[in-house]
Amino acid sequence: LVGRMREFGTTVFATMTKLAMDTGAINLGQGFPDTDGPARMLERAVDAIRGGLNQYPPGPGVPELRQAVSDHRKDWYGLAYDPGTEVLVTVGATEAIAAAVLAVCEPGDEVIVFEPFYDSYGAAVALAGAVRRPVTLRVDAGRFTFDPAELAAAVGPRTRAVLVNSPHNPTGTVFTRAELEEIAAVCRDHDLIAVTDEVYEHLTFDDVEHIPLATLPGMRERTIMISSAGKSFSVTGWKTGWICAPPSLTRAVQTVKQFLTFTSSAPWQLAVAYALREEMEWVAAQRAALQAKRDRLAAGLRTAGFDVLRPAGTYFVQTDIRPLGFDDGMEFAMRLPELAGVVAIPTQVFYDRPERGRHFVRFAFCKRDEVIDEAVARLLRLG
Amino acid sequence: LVGRMREFGTTVFATMTKLAMDTGAINLGQGFPDTDGPARMLERAVDAIRGGLNQYPPGPGVPELRQAVSDHRKDWYGLAYDPGTEVLVTVGATEAIAAAVLAVCEPGDEVIVFEPFYDSYGAAVALAGAVRRPVTLRVDAGRFTFDPAELAAAVGPRTRAVLVNSPHNPTGTVFTRAELEEIAAVCRDHDLIAVTDEVYEHLTFDDVEHIPLATLPGMRERTIMISSAGKSFSVTGWKTGWICAPPSLTRAVQTVKQFLTFTSSAPWQLAVAYALREEMEWVAAQRAALQAKRDRLAAGLRTAGFDVLRPAGTYFVQTDIRPLGFDDGMEFAMRLPELAGVVAIPTQVFYDRPERGRHFVRFAFCKRDEVIDEAVARLLRLG
Ligand SMILES: CSCCC(=O)C(=O)O
Ligand SMILES: CSCCC(=O)C(=O)O
Repeated sequence: LVGRMREFGTTVFATMTKLAMDTGAINLGQGFPDTDGPARMLERAVDAIRGGLNQYPPGPGVPELRQAVSDHRKDWYGLAYDPGTEVLVTVGATEAIAAAVLAVCEPGDEVIVFEPFYDSYGAAVALAGAVRRPVTLRVDAGRFTFDPAELAAAVGPRTRAVLVNSPHNPTGTVFTRAELEEIAAVCRDHDLIAVTDEVYEHLTFDDVEHIPLATLPGMRERTIMISSAGKSFSVTGWKTGWICAPPSLTRAVQTVKQFLTFTSSAPWQLAVAYALREEMEWVAAQRAALQAKRDRLAAGLRTAGFDVLRPAGTYFVQTDIRPLGFDDGMEFAMRLPELAGVVAIPTQVFYDRPERGRHFVRFAFCKRDEVIDEAVARLLRLG
Repeated sequence: LVGRMREFGTTVFATMTKLAMDTGAINLGQGFPDTDGPARMLERAVDAIRGGLNQYPPGPGVPELRQAVSDHRKDWYGLAYDPGTEVLVTVGATEAIAAAVLAVCEPGDEVIVFEPFYDSYGAAVALAGAVRRPVTLRVDAGRFTFDPAELAAAVGPRTRAVLVNSPHNPTGTVFTRAELEEIAAVCRDHDLIAVTDEVYEHLTFDDVEHIPLATLPGMRERTIMISSAGKSFSVTGWKTGWICAPPSLTRAVQTVKQFLTFTSSAPWQLAVAYALREEMEWVAAQRAALQAKRDRLAAGLRTAGFDVLRPAGTYFVQTDIRPLGFDDGMEFAMRLPELAGVVAIPTQVFYDRPERGRHFVRFAFCKRDEVIDEAVARLLRLG
């Protein structure tokens, strides 16, 4: 294995899901729902397979999906993207992030990331031979946020891009307009590219609204906006994502993307195009259901003795394990299958400075109620 | 776009397929069949979708497919690969190639490629910051082959890997045992890794047999053997491939692969696992049908005035356009839609030294007979 990738082992999600399978523990680690997306969307994929759409679709994506993404951005956020030159379909958001970073970062360039960060961000930056500059999200008044001074201090002469994930995995934070303004100002002042991972855009709770960074003044022209179908429509395995960006950035990402995977399967693309048009009510219901699940798991975790940090979005809730008499989330998560028959993710793996996340453990609540209830019943044994 | 990718524009396949769509020409450019794979295989994918297998499968691939790949390698080639540690599922061979090169090549390392080469090879090498060293395949007695002295001369102190594609796209050459021995000797003598693209392994003609490089003495331990379902089972859009390699190489490729796309869709994987076990007779019939198509198109091209180089495998036939009074294959291919309503690929785009492929044009014959006949009828206008 090449030097630049040596710090990366197996992704924590693969490790923890395997741990769950090997021990029979309930998997509240990796974030994927245990119920399927809208039935009619699945049938669209079936129709495409039976209808003979099993050969290479156009590399940048099927026109129906690019148009549906464009219309969705317009309807939801007032953002106009030309489907022909400003929308590119990818193999999930993961490929979009890798291709975006590889397309814009020269070796030695610096990329600002908010720590804790989703593990593929670090790997994408390393693959490009670039260097990450973490800005730490810290708990303030019950939510994770950043210090604008720390963000400003992270910028240097080699800074090329900022990776922004909101709603944020693994903390559940949804950046406020004020926070996004701070990020936008830094991008504009230093001519940075923003790569935004917005895969949880429709999974926010209470009255919190997701605001795309690209909607802020001066940002559309410098933002590679990424999302995907997996979370909105509960088909994480379909690996169908997209970017929206100005033509030159879209072209740059496509240049890389076409040599990573060439193209994405047409049946998923056609089904997702349908869902973006016709299943947004399903998504709204899903969002409400997910909020109830968040509350259900959070209440259980509190009863079990955790300090719970209520998330404004995503599939995940963060907990502080100290009230339970534990100190190290890694040790806790590795022992949790044996102690309670549950798998969770030690948040510290998402930090460049793991000690800053030492006490946090992440639980996924995108599961059936009976699964959540059984997990809670098991976790009560910890007390 | 970063410097190392600036020599790459849109892949020639996307460009030429778009040209076909825009002009209504018959597309004998990009290699994909116009009929579907085995019906029962398609229904396995349908079953998986309806059976709720739409969430993340395990990152390295579903166990059923890894086992089926392992069994297939054993049955066909006598190669034993452990499905748990020596098989990795990828998003088609394209991702496998990119991940393999990114996993083993440090910046400045050199990679030997046989020119003309499939366009993603150059891009994968460039993404890694590595340097390609082309060895030219030249026509000798009606087939493309290489000069062992030229291969030996391409090796230097920084050489890390050899990319070997057999059956070879775009020339249609299937390397003989003698040719593979030359490559193996160089790999062993200089401790090189072989990355083999064998996606056309089952599509060879006449009495030509495909020989995996990994079956040669001392090669299994240093070979990343790549194949995919797209060509064998006529589902190029499913983007389901795999590598077989010793554990340390498999782990290295997986480390990269998991951050390019994380995982590949389960419905395709399960359908392909079924097909590898139960549809090899379909593949044998397909191979015979394809051979007849090769002969059909080759005869037509000869009548139309081309010099035809008969391929031993793949979807493609090479032609020399000089007998038609043309000199530059690029110019010829760009004018072909207007001259004859057909799209083909100028072979020179696959060379580092395009003048060496100047007179060649590639035609795909993986099409229905009536499509081939209509293309030939149109090409007769050239005379
Ligand atoms: C790509 S696997 C990870 C799923 C996920 O987004 C998470 O669990 O954080
Ligand atoms: C990945 S698109 C190219 C299809 C193909 O293998 C070819 O036409 O050479």
